Amino acid sequence: MELKTKIKAEEGKQDLLIMREFDLPVELLFKAHTEAELLEQWMGTKVLKLESKKHGSYRFETTDPRGNKHGFNGVLHDIALNQKIIRTFEMEGTPYGVQMEVYDFEQLTSDTCKLQIHTIYESPAQRDQVLKLPFAQGINLAHNRLQDILNKLIS
Amino acid sequence: MELKTKIKAEEGKQDLLIMREFDLPVELLFKAHTEAELLEQWMGTKVLKLESKKHGSYRFETTDPRGNKHGFNGVLHDIALNQKIIRTFEMEGTPYGVQMEVYDFEQLTSDTCKLQIHTIYESPAQRDQVLKLPFAQGINLAHNRLQDILNKLIS
Repeated sequence: MELKTKIKAEEGKQDLLIMREFDLPVELLFKAHTEAELLEQWMGTKVLKLESKKHGSYRFETTDPRGNKHGFNGVLHDIALNQKIIRTFEMEGTPYGVQMEVYDFEQLTSDTCKLQIHTIYESPAQRDQVLKLPFAQGINLAHNRLQDILNKLIS
Repeated sequence: MELKTKIKAEEGKQDLLIMREFDLPVELLFKAHTEAELLEQWMGTKVLKLESKKHGSYRFETTDPRGNKHGFNGVLHDIALNQKIIRTFEMEGTPYGVQMEVYDFEQLTSDTCKLQIHTIYESPAQRDQVLKLPFAQGINLAHNRLQDILNKLIS
């Protein structure tokens, strides 16, 4: 089955694009990325810190089925309401390095919108390692959850 | 004349390497990158903010000969004393985007050290635009100043 969240990763490059359209007002999609309570629901992570402002920072934590904790953290270089987030991202304790992520939020109609995430890795090798994880499936699943959870808010 | 600060930029890539060896203890080179007073001297910028800590941020400002002000800002993803700084960097009001920079500080002997900066751009085009500026000359000049100014501190 084709995934709704598309990933474009050109051979030999150290970046990739993640694209998804949502049946949601762009304001709500942006909130889902900047408000801890919503983010916890669709990402399935605990939000330990989330400062959604220029030069802010964040830290999330998940607990896997065996009870092991996995941390994620980064800094917000810049943020523009309902439009853009530029941040760093690191999966702690992994060999994938630090990534820079550029989120573009775009209104399509008053009820639909588009998200594009440009992720830039430290090297092509690190990007390719991440692509070997169930990466596309994971993001697609999280985006499906996002759509479902926010559907309830607007219906 | 060959510049002491070397730049390696492979064709078609979106990153580059800056390398320089200094006749300085690594601790002093690290200080020159993390303490406002020293940084202002060798970079020739005014430091408006410099939080040299994990999830900290900074903003610098220079004034050109015509009196125009140019701002630079970014966030520190991580920092390890005398070893590493991972940060973002943006020349405000320019088309060069946001860069991620990984600084590696390495002790060679007790009096010499090596700096490597891995800079990753949003695209190969933005990197190539920056390389058209007097970029190599500018960094080399700043690094020469750094060596000269810190020479006085240790002599």
